Amino acid sequence: MQVVKMIIAYDGSQFFGWQRQNKHRNVQGEIEKALKKILKQVIEIDGAGRTDAGVHALGQVATFGAVVPMPLDNLKRALNNELPIDIVVKALSFESNDFHARYSAIGKTYVYKVDNSPLRDVFKSGMYHYPYDLDLELMKAVAEKLVGYHNFEAFKASGSSAGNPFRTIHSIEIKKEDNQITMTFSGDGFLYKMVRLLVAFILGVGNKRIPLDVVDEILKNPSREFTSKVAPARGLYLREVFYN
Amino acid sequence: MQVVKMIIAYDGSQFFGWQRQNKHRNVQGEIEKALKKILKQVIEIDGAGRTDAGVHALGQVATFGAVVPMPLDNLKRALNNELPIDIVVKALSFESNDFHARYSAIGKTYVYKVDNSPLRDVFKSGMYHYPYDLDLELMKAVAEKLVGYHNFEAFKASGSSAGNPFRTIHSIEIKKEDNQITMTFSGDGFLYKMVRLLVAFILGVGNKRIPLDVVDEILKNPSREFTSKVAPARGLYLREVFYN
Repeated sequence: MQVVKMIIAYDGSQFFGWQRQNKHRNVQGEIEKALKKILKQVIEIDGAGRTDAGVHALGQVATFGAVVPMPLDNLKRALNNELPIDIVVKALSFESNDFHARYSAIGKTYVYKVDNSPLRDVFKSGMYHYPYDLDLELMKAVAEKLVGYHNFEAFKASGSSAGNPFRTIHSIEIKKEDNQITMTFSGDGFLYKMVRLLVAFILGVGNKRIPLDVVDEILKNPSREFTSKVAPARGLYLREVFYN
Repeated sequence: MQVVKMIIAYDGSQFFGWQRQNKHRNVQGEIEKALKKILKQVIEIDGAGRTDAGVHALGQVATFGAVVPMPLDNLKRALNNELPIDIVVKALSFESNDFHARYSAIGKTYVYKVDNSPLRDVFKSGMYHYPYDLDLELMKAVAEKLVGYHNFEAFKASGSSAGNPFRTIHSIEIKKEDNQITMTFSGDGFLYKMVRLLVAFILGVGNKRIPLDVVDEILKNPSREFTSKVAPARGLYLREVFYN
């Protein structure tokens, strides 16, 4: 029995998220099906993060334990032949027995893409089309205030389970090229829908619907007054998962 | 009653093609539904070309006759609010009463995109992933032989209706940037599935499965021996329709 780490990319638009379920197409189920067919064993994989319906991954990580009777290069090729066109295995490696995609993770980077053009581009389906005015300096200013160790209770999907709402955001980078805005969030972990709530909030500040200063109060005394909007899944990418 | 010309882009991946039908989602039907809602008239539009399921458009053209009680800029904005996210109206203009999207067209340009990387990129769903060796010079050589006025019977979908198989291809441009190959076809018109049959044939020559010289014979004495493959719809874009 060996522990195998997978690095996986997928276009999330045709999936009801990562997690295995019976009713709808999901990433975990497709990968487990391919592994079973190739390795002739029932295999359960653990993902580093359960991406929601429509969310993409450039570098999702998953682990599984199995008897692997072939070189990993061959397994990778076989998997990519077997998997649907919107999932690809980018790398496979053997890890020590105590390695686990989720529990061993020490941080993650997410990217969010916004198309700020006046007219939507139908070939940018992996971006959130936001045709309204944006002040990039205001967005950068609010991002700077969000970085650090804070109570992010206000940036957690309402109705999600309780638990420690404190997280550390290491950095938020905001770049604009032509009309495309890319926001890159790195942190030790993110609450449920936290990145998409942060994106909607930052856009609200950039659009001057939300005053810059409210962020200080929200991080001290969580309230949902300014954080009721969630940016659409289509613009979100799990880019990387970090380990020691 | 005025004749309105529309220039339309769509991501074809979630449509069963351009043409109106009852069972499946189609581009024509979505546009007619939006026009009816805005103009309060039943409107039938005519497209310059009936793109197949999965085929995209950067500049499809359609015409309709209607009473338009608002400036075209307002109609365009209303349409883009009403239309689904994978269709966009790029331009509207009034034309003379004898103008017709299909019958007035004198030529078309199609683009076909190939991803020649070893590993598929799940975010390049609008390209045909072809990971095999390609000799670009051979592809350009066969493209040059295909340009001109020829009998393209061998490059017509088998089973499609009879009719004049002669067409003029004005140019075929083949470019490679990084691992992405773009083939651009301009001509006075194309037979059913002709571009995708040409692409598969050119790739076969580039991959050395098809000898370069057979093209001369195929254009003289049509046979399907080397033209049984059709390149997938996902890589094809109707870029422009030309008028006098």
